[in-house]
Amino acid sequence: MRGFDSTEFQLRTERAQRRMDEAGISALLLTTEPEIRYFTGYLTRFWESPTRPWFLIIPATGKPVAVIPSIGAALMAQTWVGDIRTWSAPDLTDDGVGLLTETLCEISPMDAVIGIPDGHETHIRMPLADFRRLQDGLGSRSLSGDSGILRDLRMVKSPAEISKIETACSIAGRAFDRVPEIAGEGKALDEVFRRFQMLCLEEGADWVPYLAGGAEQGGYSDVISPARSTALKPDDVLMLDTGLVWDGYFCDFDRNWSIGPASLEVRDAYAALIEASDTAFEAARPGATAADLFQIMNNVLSRNRGDTGAGRLGHGLGMSLTEWPSLIPTDHTVLEPGMVLTLEPGIAVGEKILVHEENIVITEGAPRFISPRVGPELPAI
Amino acid sequence: MRGFDSTEFQLRTERAQRRMDEAGISALLLTTEPEIRYFTGYLTRFWESPTRPWFLIIPATGKPVAVIPSIGAALMAQTWVGDIRTWSAPDLTDDGVGLLTETLCEISPMDAVIGIPDGHETHIRMPLADFRRLQDGLGSRSLSGDSGILRDLRMVKSPAEISKIETACSIAGRAFDRVPEIAGEGKALDEVFRRFQMLCLEEGADWVPYLAGGAEQGGYSDVISPARSTALKPDDVLMLDTGLVWDGYFCDFDRNWSIGPASLEVRDAYAALIEASDTAFEAARPGATAADLFQIMNNVLSRNRGDTGAGRLGHGLGMSLTEWPSLIPTDHTVLEPGMVLTLEPGIAVGEKILVHEENIVITEGAPRFISPRVGPELPAI
Repeated sequence: MRGFDSTEFQLRTERAQRRMDEAGISALLLTTEPEIRYFTGYLTRFWESPTRPWFLIIPATGKPVAVIPSIGAALMAQTWVGDIRTWSAPDLTDDGVGLLTETLCEISPMDAVIGIPDGHETHIRMPLADFRRLQDGLGSRSLSGDSGILRDLRMVKSPAEISKIETACSIAGRAFDRVPEIAGEGKALDEVFRRFQMLCLEEGADWVPYLAGGAEQGGYSDVISPARSTALKPDDVLMLDTGLVWDGYFCDFDRNWSIGPASLEVRDAYAALIEASDTAFEAARPGATAADLFQIMNNVLSRNRGDTGAGRLGHGLGMSLTEWPSLIPTDHTVLEPGMVLTLEPGIAVGEKILVHEENIVITEGAPRFISPRVGPELPAI
Repeated sequence: MRGFDSTEFQLRTERAQRRMDEAGISALLLTTEPEIRYFTGYLTRFWESPTRPWFLIIPATGKPVAVIPSIGAALMAQTWVGDIRTWSAPDLTDDGVGLLTETLCEISPMDAVIGIPDGHETHIRMPLADFRRLQDGLGSRSLSGDSGILRDLRMVKSPAEISKIETACSIAGRAFDRVPEIAGEGKALDEVFRRFQMLCLEEGADWVPYLAGGAEQGGYSDVISPARSTALKPDDVLMLDTGLVWDGYFCDFDRNWSIGPASLEVRDAYAALIEASDTAFEAARPGATAADLFQIMNNVLSRNRGDTGAGRLGHGLGMSLTEWPSLIPTDHTVLEPGMVLTLEPGIAVGEKILVHEENIVITEGAPRFISPRVGPELPAI
C-alpha cells in the first residue's frame, strides 16, 4: 500500500504532543522534508529545488498547520492537514516569514517556547536572515531546541514504515542479484553505476537518490567518490552501495564482488566482515545499545585486521538514507523494537578497504534481516 | 571533460575575495553542497546522508580551507584544496564545531566579519545548537550575511560550466525523444516515470535527482505530485519534467505529449506556451531583466488564457536544479552573458494546466537554446 492511514499521522502527532507537554514546548516548527513528511505524508521530489521554504507547525493540540508556498497547496490538501496557509513564493520582500510569524503568534501564547530540531543530523531549511527576522517577530516567544522529540519519534518505526523499508530492500536485493548482467572484466565502472541504477528502477524503485561504491585491485580506497570510467579488471573488488527509495522510504545496503577469483587475503577479510555483521545481528536485541553493536563488530574486526577508520559501523535508516542512532563507541542509545539499523563493518586490506552492509529490524525477540542475508564467501563475477 | 582545471577554482576564489574585500568580509563560511563544490570541485553523492556537517572557509587571500569529516579527506585531497582539517564524525560531544571555531579564529582577525550566505534560496547546513555554539566561540568576530557574493558569482557561468549544462540538456533531449517507446495508452504513469529515468541513465545521465510531471484529461492539476499508477488514456496530456545531472550540473526542462489526438483547446494552449517562451527567448539579451522576461511571457499568456498562478515563469539553473534569478515581476536582476535560464510558462486550460520549459544561455548577442527547441504543435503518442 502506498501512503499511510491518517491514524498513523494522528498517532505520530499525539506522541509528539505528549512529549512537547512534558518538555514545556508549546509548538514545534519544522522546516525539512522528512520532518514535514513525518507528520503529514506530504511526498514530492520538488524539495530538490532550493528556492522555496516550507513550514509545518505542530501545535500543543490538534492537527499540524502548514505554512507553505501556494504551489504546494493542492498536494498538501490531499493529506490529513486541514489548516493550510499559503503565500506566493518566491517573494523577494517576505518569503513566508510574515505569515509564519503571524501563525506562530496565533497558535502559541506569549512567552511560549517554540521547539525546532537543533541537534545532530538536523538543520533549519530557511535562510539565516529570515530565521533572524522570525526570532525578532516572535517577541517574547523563544525559539529553542525540540528536546530530541523528532529524533526519538522517528527512530522507532511503525509496522507500516518497516514494511516500506522492506519493500525498498527487496527491490535492491533483486537489482544486486542481477549485477553479473552488467558488471565484469572490461566494463567501465561509471557504466556499471549507470546500469545498476537502471536495474534498481526496473525492479521497482521510485527513484535512486544514492549510489556509491568503488572497484580497485584487492579492495577500494574510498566509498564516497563518483565512479570513474576505468574498466574493471581481474583482482578488482567491486562494491555497490545503494539507497533507493520506495514510497518515501530508503534501503541502504551494499554488495561486493570479486572480478575473477579473489586472493586469499581478500576472501579472509570479506569473511571477517560477514562474521562481524552476523555477530552484531545476534546481539541486536532490545536492551543492547548502539555502542554495544559497534564494540561487537570492532572486536571481530580487530581480531582480524582492524577497522578502516570510517568512524562508525552502522546507523539508523528510514525516511532518510542515514538516521539516528550511530553505531559508534559513544552512542548509548538503547535498542527498541521497531528500530531499523544498518550493520556496516569495514576492514583494511593492505592499503585498501572492504565494506559490507546489511539492514535489520529490531523486534521483541531475535532481530530480522530485511536485506537478503549473504554468506561468508565473496562472490566472483 | 570531467571536472575543471584548477584555474577555474582559482578564478572563482579570487573573484569572491575581491567582493569580500569590498564588503568588509574577512572570510566566508560555507556549509552546503553546491557552495562547497563551487570553490573546490568536491563532488560526491554522500551529501544524501544528513549525518555529517561539512565546512569550507574562503579566507581573505589564498586557497579555501576545508574543515570536514575524516571520511571525506581522501576525496578532498584530490581537489586543489591544500589545507584540509578533519575530525572523526559523527562526534556526539563536538561535531566539528571546536575545530571550525579554532580555524576561523586563526584565519580571521579579532572583530572580523565572517560572511555566510543568508539570503533567498540559502540555508545553513549545520544544527542550530552547533551554530549557536559557533557564534559564542567566535567572541568579537561576527557572523553576518555574505552580501550576495555567492549568488552573484554562481549566477554567471563560465564556458566550462555551460558546456556541462549543455551535456545534461542533450542527454535529456535524447531521453525525451525516446518517450514514445515507453509511454502510450494503457501504460501506467508511475511505470512511465520509472522507464523515463532509465532512459535518462541509458542516454548518459550520472543520476536523476529530479523527475516530476503529470497526465490527466486535457492537462494536469499539479506538477509536483509523485506519479500514481493510473493508466494513460486518450485525451490525457502527459508532461515529464526532469532535472538530470551530468558531472554535477543540471538540466531542467520538460516535454508534453497528447495521448491520441488533442482537442483544439489543448493545442491552442500549447501553441501559446511555445509562443510565450519563444518571445521571451528573443528578448533574453544583456540589459533585459528577469522581470522583463516574466512580463513578456505573461503578456502572451494573458492574451490567451491567463497564467497558472505558479508564481514564476522560469529561473536560473546550474549546480542546483533551480538557482537565481527568478522570472517574477519583482526580480530586477539584469541579464548578463553566461547566465543560464529556464523559460517556464504555464497556462490554464479549464480546470487543468499545461507547463512548458526550455533552457537557454545568455550571450553577448542573441541567446542560445541549449534544450532542443520545439515547434508549436503538441506531439501525439
